Amino acid sequence: MSNPVLAELLRGELVESRHSGALAVSDSEGGLVLAFGDTERPVFPRSAVKAFQALPLIESGAADRLGLDDGEIALAVSSHGGEARHVAVATSMLAKAGRDVATLECGVHAPSYRKAAEALVRAGEKPSALHNNCSGKHSGFICLACAEGLDPKGYVGPSHPVMRAVMGAVNEMSGAALDGAGVGTDGCSIPTQAAPLAGIARGFARLGTGAHLGPERAKAAARIRRAAAADPFLVAGTGRFCTDVMAIFGERVFVKTGAEGVFCACLPELGYGVALKCDDGATRAAEVMMAAVIARLLPLSDSENAALQPFLAPVQKNWNGIEVGRLRAAGPLA
Amino acid sequence: MSNPVLAELLRGELVESRHSGALAVSDSEGGLVLAFGDTERPVFPRSAVKAFQALPLIESGAADRLGLDDGEIALAVSSHGGEARHVAVATSMLAKAGRDVATLECGVHAPSYRKAAEALVRAGEKPSALHNNCSGKHSGFICLACAEGLDPKGYVGPSHPVMRAVMGAVNEMSGAALDGAGVGTDGCSIPTQAAPLAGIARGFARLGTGAHLGPERAKAAARIRRAAAADPFLVAGTGRFCTDVMAIFGERVFVKTGAEGVFCACLPELGYGVALKCDDGATRAAEVMMAAVIARLLPLSDSENAALQPFLAPVQKNWNGIEVGRLRAAGPLA
Repeated sequence: MSNPVLAELLRGELVESRHSGALAVSDSEGGLVLAFGDTERPVFPRSAVKAFQALPLIESGAADRLGLDDGEIALAVSSHGGEARHVAVATSMLAKAGRDVATLECGVHAPSYRKAAEALVRAGEKPSALHNNCSGKHSGFICLACAEGLDPKGYVGPSHPVMRAVMGAVNEMSGAALDGAGVGTDGCSIPTQAAPLAGIARGFARLGTGAHLGPERAKAAARIRRAAAADPFLVAGTGRFCTDVMAIFGERVFVKTGAEGVFCACLPELGYGVALKCDDGATRAAEVMMAAVIARLLPLSDSENAALQPFLAPVQKNWNGIEVGRLRAAGPLA
Repeated sequence: MSNPVLAELLRGELVESRHSGALAVSDSEGGLVLAFGDTERPVFPRSAVKAFQALPLIESGAADRLGLDDGEIALAVSSHGGEARHVAVATSMLAKAGRDVATLECGVHAPSYRKAAEALVRAGEKPSALHNNCSGKHSGFICLACAEGLDPKGYVGPSHPVMRAVMGAVNEMSGAALDGAGVGTDGCSIPTQAAPLAGIARGFARLGTGAHLGPERAKAAARIRRAAAADPFLVAGTGRFCTDVMAIFGERVFVKTGAEGVFCACLPELGYGVALKCDDGATRAAEVMMAAVIARLLPLSDSENAALQPFLAPVQKNWNGIEVGRLRAAGPLA
């Protein structure tokens, strides 16, 4: 019943904390290549499925009609740190839709990247919705609405035609719920649709290969992966797992974090999709789990292996810079 | 083998994340009144045992010789937010020892209270060791050294006479390790000594009652509890569980958080001590678990019950202020 411990924190020689979780690696037929824990229980995938949520923007032709470039596509699937370039690209997307920050309905929070937040304070400025980690995704929704001649107002609601298209795409890709208890409200106010990890992993296998997708959706999926690989900074930011791991592997790995310990990936050369959730919602553990899956499945060169080490066993330092412990994969993932 | 789920996060009607843990409630004889999970496996109690670590400062007479007041005693057992009053009280403690910030060996981090951190940035100032959440505890160690005529230099090391006294007190109160793999390095560079939750809980029962303690230690324990109850802001700070819960209950509850999901408490009128650890290290869950233990064991007036509700089921709001879910106790704690 309970999921296995998949990551642990060592302090000195003792295990201090333990993170259980579930993990599915699927091919595009839905065959599970690797599975730990309960991969059928629905989980909220949160921001980890932003690539699914961006499909309608591209496959509808809206992105091309507005002339969105690949950087803007990358930002549309991002959970960014609110750094200056992220804000600039979101602003540009909104301008192409004839809109600005006032149309965003994601809410406001300070940049998650500390130095960007401090720079705002130092300048005496308040954060805006452009700094919200989801502003790229929301700008994409607004672009879709405007390109289709729809009023974007209320686009975060499940009955808005934009959100109906987005929810439909997530449902088709992963088997996610369309209504009822399986639909919650995300941090940025759009619906988050619960789906089994096995279904989400199959969806990422298809995102990575195009298998079982119509031609426009397969093209859109390939464009998203190519855009993320070309400029992974735009998908997350400075010091972030998604950015740094995609910088190592280029188009060999598309990886995306979600709140509450969700992590998803495509490994296109293997034809696999990955979906995992750390039960307790810890990002630090979900990252270690994802690094361990990549190390286990993907053939690595010596330099790729070396570059992945800091993510497989992140060192924990204290306020004096003394190494006090480290995280590592555990149990069946060790 | 694995500990039960003791807290969970709901998003809408679905459980999104789960936190397992272990929990011991003990009397001062070591009899377990309530126990869930493995209460014999050693855990690092981290800052949750600062009250034990402050005993030598008081029972040695050092605190009185330097004229420390109750606010300074409260800060000596605190994990504070780095707010202006915390910094001022730590500065005063150091001055009474004839020292200043340069003697602190805890390392530097920005105030954990966001507004205090922003105020520093706005003023163009860098954080100092006084803003470290452990600066009160460290100032207490320095006071002990100076009052005893010892050079405080190197006081964070396990062979310094101050740290030997501190580690001895923690060992006597909880059965914690004195050397070997059971001793790790804490965030502030002092040793953290692993102990079973059952032993830590028994120690807190004794801290709350004075039972099985020598007369000077019993007096020191009572002074710590009285000082914390009189000014709980100094033990944590604005918006913090320890401060807010002690403000509700006064001397009826002494409660202290530790990193990586540890929480300890005395319930003196019942003669009980409480020690719990959320397996995955999440403070949000450890807080809910502690609130649930208090609600379960302590006779509550209607107003106390109402005041405790926000800690029993903290509401989660998103960036637009919409309620998206809540935390709650689960499993045997529900």
